[in-house]
Formats: sequence, structure tokens, C-alpha cells
Amino acid sequence: MGGMSLLAVAEPDRIGRLLLSQWCEAADRALGARVRQISAHGVVEEILAGRSPLPASTGRVPAGTAYDEAVIRWVEPALTTAERIGARYVVPGDPEWPTQLDDLGDAMPLGLWVAGAGNLRLLALRSLSVVGARSATAYGEGIARELGAHLAESGWLTVSGGAFGIDAAAHRGSLAVDGATACVLAGGVDVPYPRSHADLLARIRESGVLISEAPLGGAAMRHRFLTRNRIIAALSRGTVLVEAAVRSGGRSTVREARELHRVVMAFPGPVTSPMSAGCHVVIRDEGAHLVASPREVLALVEGRLAPEEQAHAGVGDGLGWRERRVLDAVPARRPAPLANIARLAGLGLAEAMAALGTLDALGYVARAGEGWARTQA
Amino acid sequence: MGGMSLLAVAEPDRIGRLLLSQWCEAADRALGARVRQISAHGVVEEILAGRSPLPASTGRVPAGTAYDEAVIRWVEPALTTAERIGARYVVPGDPEWPTQLDDLGDAMPLGLWVAGAGNLRLLALRSLSVVGARSATAYGEGIARELGAHLAESGWLTVSGGAFGIDAAAHRGSLAVDGATACVLAGGVDVPYPRSHADLLARIRESGVLISEAPLGGAAMRHRFLTRNRIIAALSRGTVLVEAAVRSGGRSTVREARELHRVVMAFPGPVTSPMSAGCHVVIRDEGAHLVASPREVLALVEGRLAPEEQAHAGVGDGLGWRERRVLDAVPARRPAPLANIARLAGLGLAEAMAALGTLDALGYVARAGEGWARTQA
Repeated sequence: MGGMSLLAVAEPDRIGRLLLSQWCEAADRALGARVRQISAHGVVEEILAGRSPLPASTGRVPAGTAYDEAVIRWVEPALTTAERIGARYVVPGDPEWPTQLDDLGDAMPLGLWVAGAGNLRLLALRSLSVVGARSATAYGEGIARELGAHLAESGWLTVSGGAFGIDAAAHRGSLAVDGATACVLAGGVDVPYPRSHADLLARIRESGVLISEAPLGGAAMRHRFLTRNRIIAALSRGTVLVEAAVRSGGRSTVREARELHRVVMAFPGPVTSPMSAGCHVVIRDEGAHLVASPREVLALVEGRLAPEEQAHAGVGDGLGWRERRVLDAVPARRPAPLANIARLAGLGLAEAMAALGTLDALGYVARAGEGWARTQA
Repeated sequence: MGGMSLLAVAEPDRIGRLLLSQWCEAADRALGARVRQISAHGVVEEILAGRSPLPASTGRVPAGTAYDEAVIRWVEPALTTAERIGARYVVPGDPEWPTQLDDLGDAMPLGLWVAGAGNLRLLALRSLSVVGARSATAYGEGIARELGAHLAESGWLTVSGGAFGIDAAAHRGSLAVDGATACVLAGGVDVPYPRSHADLLARIRESGVLISEAPLGGAAMRHRFLTRNRIIAALSRGTVLVEAAVRSGGRSTVREARELHRVVMAFPGPVTSPMSAGCHVVIRDEGAHLVASPREVLALVEGRLAPEEQAHAGVGDGLGWRERRVLDAVPARRPAPLANIARLAGLGLAEAMAALGTLDALGYVARAGEGWARTQA
């Protein structure tokens, strides 16, 4: 939980967001606007005082509840659970907050529960969402798996939703090459959904992150899947639709991504396959780029990187994701100690050390006093 | 040969085009420009007099050849062959000339050899080219066949090149529903190519047309395939690429069609199939519309029809191609005799009569005196 504990009641913004995330539905734009206007703590005070102008979602708070009571009833249990399961609540302003979520404006999540070894902000800097049908075909799953692997090998994070079909194949593709992947869940980060993916989600957590705006223990309810999709779209630089029926949840993620001006891509498939029909519609009618290989996917998003990021990406060509991430974490000008590099890369000391060894052998970095430095810019 | 015979030396333009088409390579823009400037007959006179400013293609004419000699040596044998095989030489200004070929400018064919029961101009008014790989897959051939059939059933002519793979499948699709189809050959209309398609070409000729700008007896030489593609593209309102490798002749037809501002379409396929890779390139990089069904193909081209043509097309929905063509041939205002209707529709009297019977039963037309009239506009 970082600096968060039972003593953290001195953090009124974080506490406010924790309370509101349990009292209100996610992606409530009126709530988001009010939070931006008077702060999360301010909205909590209004609700507790029974004078909130918000129409909805305060039915869970009995009139006359005191602030301390609310903290005891809603915050302490959450923090206890979080400590037990090793989850952290990340809010805007935290070092781990992925600032690209601010693009969601009033629909921005109040905060995110994060569980896993990775650093969400760093991981998500170069991330792509890979989404599609639950009832995918072998063709689509093959593409998703290959794409997940290729992204990981190129230092990109695969973001998806952990569902059957395309989602799972994309996550597994990244995991198969020892890459990190991020899963945005509709229910709580401590609620494996679908249940049969409990092992997959545990593996994602080991090297990457599980993410959710839903309260801990929250069920994966139907409406939460749609609101969840906006986080998948906003977190990443682009969304790739691999297979989708004409009516499908994947298309809602594509729509969100387009509205957020992210790169939107889709894989074509046989016109005889209903599972490619949704992809063909978004290519034909919604401006999605047709992509036919993982290489084309990366060419599209890397073309959108800022020049200095592109140059950077060029340096690490052919490196594994750990090496790339560690190389990114080695400052350009002065040496840094191993511990700093590992922390910035979101890796353990042993992992970071192994990656530095590889980078040293390849001539990218060299020991410098007690730390490590780049050999050239 | 219509009005053409050995007496037709009184037709200097037609004779000039016949001579030049045997002396010069097709699609020679310098020649085309000179013909437009001073007429085909004028160019012939320049060549015979040894004072042609054209750099190429006159090596076949010995210096000092007289006009009458030229006619005896090059025109009479062609006319004799044409009469024997039942072909006609159609030139600009003829009622059967498809005026959309004028879009080719200086690269316009000098004339076209046409063999077959159909009227080229009428057939080509609503035509689409269906092109693609010779080494097509079962997937592509299935699409081409279905498209050929759907176009014919909707009153559209399928234009293609008679080659193995996609071309043949498209022609066969139209023939399977008793529709007309047009084949633009690279060699002479009397030279079945590929040889094993002799039966297919004979069937195309029975209800549709075989077309070529190459002289009768001309071999299907390599360079003639590329120049032939411009005629396929120009003749039709749009070109559909069904399957193509990244390097393929089909893509040259697509390029011609795009330059002529025709509707350009391509079917996607599995990204794992090299035979769909060319289609994906033209969709992604060359502005081709992605189409996933014959219905989508027609929606795109019918959307481009002039309003009165659209209304017209609407009337005949669900009619077979013969009925549509006959309905088109029945004047809107006053009755016409059967013979006129049949001629305008490019059909035999018996066929036209049968179609009129169907249209009568469906309420589109009615007997009026000695002829037939539309029941309503």
C-alpha cells in the first residue's frame, strides 16, 4: 500500500476516493465533475451532510453518518483486505498513476486498485490493448497469441481484459515469452473472473499487473464490463481488435479508443467468418487501420511516438522486454545505483541485475563506480 | 461485321484503326494522341508516305506501300477471318462502342474486336470487373463465384480476363445463373487463352462477349496482359480484387481503376494467407474499399449511380439479368415493338419475349398494340 495504512486518514483525497468508489457507480460523469470541482473529500462531506447535489448513488450512506464512522466502516476493511492480498490503491498524483487516464475527463476512474509486481505507470507508457471476441476462433486466438508475444518481445505491454478467447490468448502470448501483461478486471482485483482463469490471473500478477476501479471483493457485474472497457482504451496508445462479431464488447473498446484519439486497429479475416465481421465493419466504417501482422501494429504506434521516444525505441531493437525496461531506467547522463534502476524498471533486484548483465555484454551499459551508466546516448 | 465488308473501304476511319492496330503496339500514347489530332486515316497516310513523326511501330510497313496494297494485305484478310469466326470490329462512334473507354484518353484502344451474342455497350453500362490471382485458394474462388452469380442476378455484368483462378471463378459464377459475362483477352478473340479454357470462353461468347484490342490471331503475349488490364478497369464502374499476392497483375488493374476514378474494392482474407496479402495492401495503402459480401459490392457501386439510374435499379430489384435488361430496353413513354426491345437489350427474339412475359406477369410491362410498354414510370 506504499504510504497507505490505518494511519493514512491524514490523506483526505485518497480516503475520499476510496469512499466514493464504494458508494457510487463507476464512470458517473456528474460525480467526476463534482470531484474535480470541490475534491473527493468535499464530495464525501456533502454526502455525509445530506446536502449533495448529485442525484444518484448515495443510497448506501445512512443519513447522519459521521466521517470517522465512514472511515471505520468502509476504509478500514478495504485497507485490511488490501494489506492481506497485497493490493495498492493508486490515485491521481501518485507516482504510479498513469496520467493518460486523465484523458477520460469526468469519466476518469476515482482511483485504481492495482495488484502485481509491475509498476503500472511505467508499464503502461508503451502499451497496446488487444481485445476481441470471447468465442474466438483458432485463427483469432493464433493472431492474439502471436501479437501478445511480439509486443512483449518489443518492449510493449499488452493490456486486455482477462476474458475467454482473444483476451486470454493475448495475455498468454506475452507470458509465453516471459513478458509482462496487464489485465483490467470488471470486478475486484481479488475476484478472479472468469473463475477458470484464476491461474492465468495469478501469472499475470507475478510479472505484470491486475487493475480495477471496482472495490475489492466487487463482483464482475454486467454493466462494469462496459465501463471497464474505457480504462482499457485510455490506458494504452492504441487498441487492436483481433476478432469480433458485429455486435460485441470489443467494438465498444474500439469506440472509446477512437474517441480518445488513440490508434485504432483491426485484423481482417475470412469474410465467411462471423467472428471477423465486426473487424471488417470497424475497418470499413469506423476508420480503424487494417493490420495484417504484429509488425504492422508496432509500425503504426511507433510512428506516433514522440521523436525522442522513437530514437529511444531504436536503441533497444532486438532486446527482451526486461532489458528494454532496465535500459530505459538507466539515466542518460550520470550513473545510478542498481536499487534505483530496479525500482524505476518495476523489477526485482535479481531480475534487474540479470538484465544489466545482458545489456553490459551487448555494450549498452557499463559499471560506473557503485552503479551503472549508459555507454552512449 | 454489321455494315462492314470488303466494300467498306469507304470507311477510312475504321480501316485506319484496323491497319494501325496491326502495325503498332497497343496503348501507345504518342500514337493515340496523333490519331486524335489528325485521325487514324491521317496517321496511316503519314506512315505510308514515310513521313510519320511517330518514333516507333512502323517497321511492319515497307516504304512505298500504297494505300490499296495495305488494304489488300492487312484489312481484307482480317475481314475474311472476322466473317468466318463471327467477330466484329467496334470503333469509337459505333453504336456498340462503350464510351467509358474514352476516359483512357490517348491510351484508348483504337478499336475492339468483339465476338459474342451480347451488345458490348449495353452490357457494360452496369458492369464490374472481378480480378485476382491465378493461383487462387478455394476461399477466393468461392468468393469470386458467388460474386459473379450475385452480380448477374442483380443485372450487372461481370468483366474479367478469363485466366485461371479468380477470373475463371467469376465468369463461371455468372454463367451458372445463366448470366452474361465479358472476357477481355490479351490475345485475339479467336485465340483461346489459356487453351484449357476454350470451353469456358465458348460459353462466355454464347451469352456475353469476348473482347480484345489485339489483332485476330494475335498471341497472348506477356506485355499484352498489362495493357489489357487498362481495358478491364476502364470498361466497368468498379474493380473488385478478390485475392492477390503482394506482387500481382490484379493490383495493376486496381491501379488503373483508381486512376480512372472507378470504385476500387477488395475482399479481405486471413492474414495468414499470402493470397490475401495484396488485398490487404490495397485496402490499407491504396484507398480500396473493404468489401465483405457481394451485397456490399453492389451497395458501393449503386451508391455511385446517377439518381435516375438508381431509381431505375430499384424498380427491377429481384429480377433476373435478362428481365432487367429487357425492362431497361422498354421505352418509358411510348410502346416499342419486340424486335426493337430485343435489339436494344442485346438478346434474341425468343429470349426477349420470355423476359417480357415474366415482366408482364410481375406487372412491370403490358402489351400495347403491336408492341410493349411500361405500366408505370
